[in-house]
Amino acid sequence: MERVIVIGGGGAGTAAATIAKRLKPELRVSVFTEFADIAYSPCGIPFVHGREIPKFDDLFLSTVERYEADGLDMRMETVVTDIDLDRRTITARNQPEGFDQLVVCTGFHWQQPDVPGGNLEGLHYVKDIRKSMEFDAQLDSMKRVVVIGSGPIAVEMAGNLGHRGLHVDLVDEGPWVLHELLDPDVAQPVHESLEQRGVTLHLGTRLEGFEGTDGRIRAVATSGGALECDAAIIGLHKIPNTALAEAAGLKRGTTGALIVDDHMRTSVPGVWAAGDVIEVPHGLTMVPIVGLTGSHAYAQGRVAAVNLTGGELAYDPVWVPWGMVAGDYTIGGFSMGENLAQTLGIPYVVAKGVGVSRARYYPGATKTHVKLLAEPETLRLIGGVIHGGEGVKERADFLGFVAKRGATLHDLAYMENIYSPPIGALFEPIAIAAQNGLAEQRTPRPAVTV
Amino acid sequence: MERVIVIGGGGAGTAAATIAKRLKPELRVSVFTEFADIAYSPCGIPFVHGREIPKFDDLFLSTVERYEADGLDMRMETVVTDIDLDRRTITARNQPEGFDQLVVCTGFHWQQPDVPGGNLEGLHYVKDIRKSMEFDAQLDSMKRVVVIGSGPIAVEMAGNLGHRGLHVDLVDEGPWVLHELLDPDVAQPVHESLEQRGVTLHLGTRLEGFEGTDGRIRAVATSGGALECDAAIIGLHKIPNTALAEAAGLKRGTTGALIVDDHMRTSVPGVWAAGDVIEVPHGLTMVPIVGLTGSHAYAQGRVAAVNLTGGELAYDPVWVPWGMVAGDYTIGGFSMGENLAQTLGIPYVVAKGVGVSRARYYPGATKTHVKLLAEPETLRLIGGVIHGGEGVKERADFLGFVAKRGATLHDLAYMENIYSPPIGALFEPIAIAAQNGLAEQRTPRPAVTV
Repeated sequence: MERVIVIGGGGAGTAAATIAKRLKPELRVSVFTEFADIAYSPCGIPFVHGREIPKFDDLFLSTVERYEADGLDMRMETVVTDIDLDRRTITARNQPEGFDQLVVCTGFHWQQPDVPGGNLEGLHYVKDIRKSMEFDAQLDSMKRVVVIGSGPIAVEMAGNLGHRGLHVDLVDEGPWVLHELLDPDVAQPVHESLEQRGVTLHLGTRLEGFEGTDGRIRAVATSGGALECDAAIIGLHKIPNTALAEAAGLKRGTTGALIVDDHMRTSVPGVWAAGDVIEVPHGLTMVPIVGLTGSHAYAQGRVAAVNLTGGELAYDPVWVPWGMVAGDYTIGGFSMGENLAQTLGIPYVVAKGVGVSRARYYPGATKTHVKLLAEPETLRLIGGVIHGGEGVKERADFLGFVAKRGATLHDLAYMENIYSPPIGALFEPIAIAAQNGLAEQRTPRPAVTV
Repeated sequence: MERVIVIGGGGAGTAAATIAKRLKPELRVSVFTEFADIAYSPCGIPFVHGREIPKFDDLFLSTVERYEADGLDMRMETVVTDIDLDRRTITARNQPEGFDQLVVCTGFHWQQPDVPGGNLEGLHYVKDIRKSMEFDAQLDSMKRVVVIGSGPIAVEMAGNLGHRGLHVDLVDEGPWVLHELLDPDVAQPVHESLEQRGVTLHLGTRLEGFEGTDGRIRAVATSGGALECDAAIIGLHKIPNTALAEAAGLKRGTTGALIVDDHMRTSVPGVWAAGDVIEVPHGLTMVPIVGLTGSHAYAQGRVAAVNLTGGELAYDPVWVPWGMVAGDYTIGGFSMGENLAQTLGIPYVVAKGVGVSRARYYPGATKTHVKLLAEPETLRLIGGVIHGGEGVKERADFLGFVAKRGATLHDLAYMENIYSPPIGALFEPIAIAAQNGLAEQRTPRPAVTV
């Protein structure tokens, strides 16, 4: 019987294993995971802390028993310590296990800050749900937490813990939160919303260390002074977990993550990889990127499953629609914003506009801000930022989809749109932005005289 | 000075006039309207009756004075009684007025039922805001109303008056509400929601007449018996107001509406038309259709304005994204559903799925149902219906846009999507539907043995 081994029980691993088994039931499919749980949503964790989602149980989508009932060989709390690509074996609990095909879905770990005190108790990384459940119980007796970093998980944790009533200090070196993702013009409403939730922002502030007594954190030392706390949450970068694969000889790319082709094949035949451990090309620049989302991981796991069972499915370069709620403020986008385009030296023109999510006189209407980046001359979409109200996620998905297919500001400016007072306004915010951008293109900029 | 006359002060007329003036300020632009008001949203009227929108004042988006301040010559409460295309004049208040360019935006009127009693007081058509304000005052002392028809305006009126606490009987010959738009599988939640709002549905029921005493309606006679009422609201078909244009010699098409080309040119040079008085080709079938929305009217008025001022803008065939709230239930779609495809004899395959609008464990998540119709073999989108929750409007707009550009079920099945618990689920409902459709295509249907 042909045997498939999947290392990792996150989104990519569970997708690869369940879909492979479904497509080819005669396979023996084994999933090895170091954790005790499977098929839960780590993305929901901040919202349970914030009491927006009632309980951790809600985040479990399935059980080990159900996976076993579906015919999967589940190896829970089992660390894979070695991959031998010549013998086609892995080692776990000191036992070799042979495979015909291997899928590496070892995910990521959080970057650890390179400062003193990193081993103190009370430093928390948001990943394993059991540790988060323990942390949640401790939060009841805590008053102050410091969040280190201002990436998505840091901002979600800060906003949610503020919502729970804790005093939250957020420390980041960047000039505004989410500065790798967000443009500065969008940062202000995010800052305001976080502050309204009880978060004190310490931006442009360097982390210098963690200070403790009796082995437990008591304060975070920063370039702006010490911040007392009962716990610190670290939300820096996601680092691909490549150690095992690298030791086995799988090739890594420029980001440090594993290289795969568009079928999720690694550099070794019969060995596949998917999820946070791999890099994939960005659709516009074709530059490899990492740090994508659960839906990307799942889709990549599915591609690996289809191909390793004899099917044929390519994974396209990504246009990365993204979205999140920062404080109470919804933000999103696709591909890139102005800040990243400038950093990469990509020329662009801007098309900006503000619309409403419902007829402007209809209760509950929210302002929707759209900023589109387009290639000069062709006016093809290359990126965008959307923020402020209902429909951010759907619009970002839409724009990512059509940007991939070459849509221009001309296409969007006169798109048809639904006007029905409770759900849509006379003017679609995307069309408003595109029209403004076109108008600006037609207006020659005044010559600057010095 | 070149003079432009616009007949009609609805969405198309105001767009044509204001945009023409903005693009070419030296024009003299006159707007003739039989009504006393300008720039209000008729689409909002049902929701004011239903007390979802606080007051009629909220529906006014601008004033006559502001249009005049923008340089427009506003002829309020002025009926145009004749167009003379040879002399290039119109007649209003018995005075001829010369034009260089004419824009006909005479809109629509409601189909009147061909039964006895149509002249009784208490029969109400939803169009003019002043009449609606009077009707609203009368509603305070009413207990029962009958709604005739089950098109969008009829359903919105029924749901809103039920919400206001009136007993509402809805009478329609069709087998389910909105049957020209909706597929039967979507009718049930709409029926349930209307009933929960106090609407009694009389489907498959023929209107036979209106009965009254002292010239005022007291009951509606139907094939299912008489329904007592204090008023009846008529919401049948929209009929293009072509009488004036037809008398002048402008050509009408198969629908009875005016024929224009993609620049909004009528059959006579220098005469343009836009809005509910024209027919436009459907993007899939290229068959002319009428009865579109305010956003279509506005866009058509803009196209006329751009072209009559010397610009160049084509109006594309329409893919008709549509959406509305029926009772409390949101429905929408684009192009066509199964029912219409069958009526037109258009072959299709179906791709159906159900997803959620947020992570399924996140409070407020709603089910989103997606049904896509695709061309057999190529699997290009030809239509669809979306219903049930958040994001219906945005998804229908998206699908209309990409269907126009040839998107297939393959494109949608593996689209990237945002997964962030408060705003988007792991699986995008559109992708779920497309995947299900593809799976069905790959599974040969079992041979039927008799």
